[in-house]
Amino acid sequence: MKKTRRIIIDTDPGIDDAVAIAAALFDERLNIKLFTTVSGNVSVDKVTKNLLKLLAFWNKDVPVAIGSDRPLLREAINASDIHGSTGMDGYDFPEAKYDVLTKNHAVIEMYKVLMESKEKTTIVGIGPLTNIALLLRVYPEAVEKIEELVIMGGSLGRGNYGVLSEFNIAADPEAAKIVFESHIPLTMVGMDVGEKALISTKEQKQIQKMNKTGNMIDHLFRNYRGGSLETGLKMYDGCAISYLLEPEMFELKEAYVAIETQGTLTAGATLVDLEGYLGKETNCRVCVTINTQEFRRWFLEAIGKCD
Amino acid sequence: MKKTRRIIIDTDPGIDDAVAIAAALFDERLNIKLFTTVSGNVSVDKVTKNLLKLLAFWNKDVPVAIGSDRPLLREAINASDIHGSTGMDGYDFPEAKYDVLTKNHAVIEMYKVLMESKEKTTIVGIGPLTNIALLLRVYPEAVEKIEELVIMGGSLGRGNYGVLSEFNIAADPEAAKIVFESHIPLTMVGMDVGEKALISTKEQKQIQKMNKTGNMIDHLFRNYRGGSLETGLKMYDGCAISYLLEPEMFELKEAYVAIETQGTLTAGATLVDLEGYLGKETNCRVCVTINTQEFRRWFLEAIGKCD
Amino acid sequence: MKKTRRIIIDTDPGIDDAVAIAAALFDERLNIKLFTTVSGNVSVDKVTKNLLKLLAFWNKDVPVAIGSDRPLLREAINASDIHGSTGMDGYDFPEAKYDVLTKNHAVIEMYKVLMESKEKTTIVGIGPLTNIALLLRVYPEAVEKIEELVIMGGSLGRGNYGVLSEFNIAADPEAAKIVFESHIPLTMVGMDVGEKALISTKEQKQIQKMNKTGNMIDHLFRNYRGGSLETGLKMYDGCAISYLLEPEMFELKEAYVAIETQGTLTAGATLVDLEGYLGKETNCRVCVTINTQEFRRWFLEAIGKCD
Amino acid sequence: MKKTRRIIIDTDPGIDDAVAIAAALFDERLNIKLFTTVSGNVSVDKVTKNLLKLLAFWNKDVPVAIGSDRPLLREAINASDIHGSTGMDGYDFPEAKYDVLTKNHAVIEMYKVLMESKEKTTIVGIGPLTNIALLLRVYPEAVEKIEELVIMGGSLGRGNYGVLSEFNIAADPEAAKIVFESHIPLTMVGMDVGEKALISTKEQKQIQKMNKTGNMIDHLFRNYRGGSLETGLKMYDGCAISYLLEPEMFELKEAYVAIETQGTLTAGATLVDLEGYLGKETNCRVCVTINTQEFRRWFLEAIGKCD
Repeated sequence: MKKTRRIIIDTDPGIDDAVAIAAALFDERLNIKLFTTVSGNVSVDKVTKNLLKLLAFWNKDVPVAIGSDRPLLREAINASDIHGSTGMDGYDFPEAKYDVLTKNHAVIEMYKVLMESKEKTTIVGIGPLTNIALLLRVYPEAVEKIEELVIMGGSLGRGNYGVLSEFNIAADPEAAKIVFESHIPLTMVGMDVGEKALISTKEQKQIQKMNKTGNMIDHLFRNYRGGSLETGLKMYDGCAISYLLEPEMFELKEAYVAIETQGTLTAGATLVDLEGYLGKETNCRVCVTINTQEFRRWFLEAIGKCD
Repeated sequence: MKKTRRIIIDTDPGIDDAVAIAAALFDERLNIKLFTTVSGNVSVDKVTKNLLKLLAFWNKDVPVAIGSDRPLLREAINASDIHGSTGMDGYDFPEAKYDVLTKNHAVIEMYKVLMESKEKTTIVGIGPLTNIALLLRVYPEAVEKIEELVIMGGSLGRGNYGVLSEFNIAADPEAAKIVFESHIPLTMVGMDVGEKALISTKEQKQIQKMNKTGNMIDHLFRNYRGGSLETGLKMYDGCAISYLLEPEMFELKEAYVAIETQGTLTAGATLVDLEGYLGKETNCRVCVTINTQEFRRWFLEAIGKCD
Repeated sequence: MKKTRRIIIDTDPGIDDAVAIAAALFDERLNIKLFTTVSGNVSVDKVTKNLLKLLAFWNKDVPVAIGSDRPLLREAINASDIHGSTGMDGYDFPEAKYDVLTKNHAVIEMYKVLMESKEKTTIVGIGPLTNIALLLRVYPEAVEKIEELVIMGGSLGRGNYGVLSEFNIAADPEAAKIVFESHIPLTMVGMDVGEKALISTKEQKQIQKMNKTGNMIDHLFRNYRGGSLETGLKMYDGCAISYLLEPEMFELKEAYVAIETQGTLTAGATLVDLEGYLGKETNCRVCVTINTQEFRRWFLEAIGKCD
Repeated sequence: MKKTRRIIIDTDPGIDDAVAIAAALFDERLNIKLFTTVSGNVSVDKVTKNLLKLLAFWNKDVPVAIGSDRPLLREAINASDIHGSTGMDGYDFPEAKYDVLTKNHAVIEMYKVLMESKEKTTIVGIGPLTNIALLLRVYPEAVEKIEELVIMGGSLGRGNYGVLSEFNIAADPEAAKIVFESHIPLTMVGMDVGEKALISTKEQKQIQKMNKTGNMIDHLFRNYRGGSLETGLKMYDGCAISYLLEPEMFELKEAYVAIETQGTLTAGATLVDLEGYLGKETNCRVCVTINTQEFRRWFLEAIGKCD
């Protein structure tokens, strides 16, 4: 039997984050030790409140630590056009579950979780990488306790925030640069696979009456602007969780990935150097494609496991 | 009957330039008034010599003007790994035809050709855009005499020189910026279509004994590193000529295209803003795809028209 | 009587740091709560060891927390050509005083000191600003407990590390950008005054036999490459302490100061916008000049107070 | 007897250009073969008209060629706050002298003047360097015919357009980069000396009734915003002419000068590397200071020679 995996989820929920969190919380192979929040889709206050509402909805007691309220160097960008003004409009959630909030900053709590066990811990970063970059700079000794860092972010070519830049990386390119140069075992689940992890009307209908989670997600989907129900809803963040559980759905390549921080038009571009133009050692396992049918099957199973 | 079109070809031959030049020289719909050369695939001296050998091979008297020996601001880059040390190895050409050389710089001769006729002239730029940028700055009044500028260069996503940059643009990003911001009627035949304009062993065999041009090109192909005979040879520059003659082979989109000149890793990236992230007026017609079968048919017909 | 001021000194000793630390430790108007170390003149290991040796030399029990071993985004630069291979060559110090080392990172200890008292605390940053930038990002709530941040760094014009950049800022421009944009009450004691805070052979001879501190500093001065004994030794870091104690020695101007992080040649330049070219609100009190004679008088008095 | 020197003046008049032009036109040691104009203080149309008015005022027949109407890559900047809306307000000039206008672009005419004589020619660039950069790229063979290029532009430290950038360089940093990297014998008469080439009320009163030129310049000075009559008017461009004639007024240093083109805040900064931080061969003779009294003496003598 596959071993349970200790994980920390660093997130900015966000509708597609909600799907990822549901899938992670109800899968017995994952042992979520901590959620940390980060400014991203909307402000850190809003994303934290969204997370606490989700935990109240499922009555789950995983600790939550509030993280960075802004990127390292740049102004925060606002994605409320994609996720609605709260970041998670469309469902009437119960009151936020404030009792799981820790009093320390996300970086401190991450460090504690990493150091408290002999086992290494996997971090799943499905928002901008600000918290993780700060962790690496304030606690360089924590690097050895990270089993793997799985990030949802970046692109092999065209972007979804700028012409050549994906949102989570473009939101904090300097943090991304720190992370990609850190020598952590790193997996990039980028928008190339996120755009093929498409949920259609068919799956949406199937989850509607599956259980209360399916019903809630169905409501959120009606407000989500990451794709459309006709052409498919893009499950960017869900992809990162599905990679943890069923990596065989993905085609992977080892590559050197560099982050552009200096371009006026291209800051936040991820240069996934499959051809070796830059002549550097590989630093990342990159998901280059995903089997969409398998992802849909996984999605239905994952929601099926929820309350 | 389609009118004959006055054209200037600005080029850095180069094996795939040779195919483009053959196709242009022998098509009666094109009236080539001038060739200009530019530092690119190899040095301007070598590319000029290559062009003069090609003209000697066909005994054609089109004037040739030598252009820029280096990019506007940057050091020249060297593509002899792709094109061989002369840029056109693999065939035993006759002596270069020096009598067609003009004494003036490419920019001056371009200007003369543009101004000498009431008709407008089309410029086809299949090398770095240095000469054309200089033309626009030294003779801004010439802009109105340019019917269309068709360039082979740029990319919608990934590159062939850097991770996100195509060779002709990356070789002189500042020149490209001048050209793309110039309000000339502009068509970008980028590497996205160049990579689908693939010549296979089948076509290669067909041209071998077709005529002396086919034989010569067959020899050059054996030394060309832009693709392989197994997966197909990429006819980047030929594409630009085929666009002039049969634009219906291409799918076109109007877009704003910006050039990154400031990035450390991404200088020379073309940001083809199909989604409107940058909020600018369109400045370019962009070839987004090509019908490969139609291109092969055109290629065989074009070579068939040659000596 | 002037109130005692709570201070934290963030430092990378360094010969001229040693002078600053001596002056601060023995002045009763300053209550040093914490030293933190940072990669700068030499590696963080070496600068920490230097600091612990200084504390052993004076047998002082101020806590020391080790901080960042590298800049936020860039590689560390090495100034051992200025400060010698250990950063503090030239005197035979006692063993380092390891018992004052805290177990937490500098950022955590700074936060504790800031929050433990109702009184605000002044931070004196005489190295690169990495630790302070991390503090601001991990603990944004600490901002309100900072009375003033006095930094030794930056320049009104020409530099001492690059043509237009001063060492402490150029060593970590991104950290400097975070600090200068943070809305902390900020005072910049830049190299313009550091270069006029000159100690000559006369003062050197006076301190030689003044006390054991004077004797030690005299030895260090013989190995210091920040100026020469003929033209004067530049007391960059000492200036920051003298500003705390006798600000009337300085001419001050309020200005907006921006940090260049994007320039290829100018990263780390401080743009002290005295004329308002940038049209921004002031964010810094800038020392534009110093009375050299007064500084020398202060220096002799300060060393005179030491053991 | 000192030989007459062939010169081309590339200019954007501008009040202080007028002084420079007066001094050059009436000094028998200078043989002005050509004036070229460039977009700078105000638009190229306005500066050309200003120049033609000046030539009409003196009835001088030196040929004038219109040059670049904009910088190489950037938008033109407008300095009419310094020079008034026409660039030369404050005097009632005669009609512009259109008969000296050439029909060719400045770059072509410069080339002709350079090539027409066995003697080399000196170019004096007292505006942005756009024309000269284009000359170097379109006619690289002209480099050998340039005896010296004397430019008014750049700074050793602080700027007058941006915090660290001088107007003529900041107006077209890419052109400046081309020029400074061109291996021409280059002399930089920067704003450091321009700011010390101060004309006071005393000199202004002396020239008032000296001759018609003095009277005209006196009128222009009342509208000039480059300094004030109280603290002195800065004769930036006049400096460049005075350098040609009496270089012994200046202190000169050989240095490598680099141009920042990539900085967001510092584009157009000149890095005058007197200390060798950049480890490059010198490429420029830099005027680091001027004898103000000598300059005033020269100024009075120069105006005294005029009509």
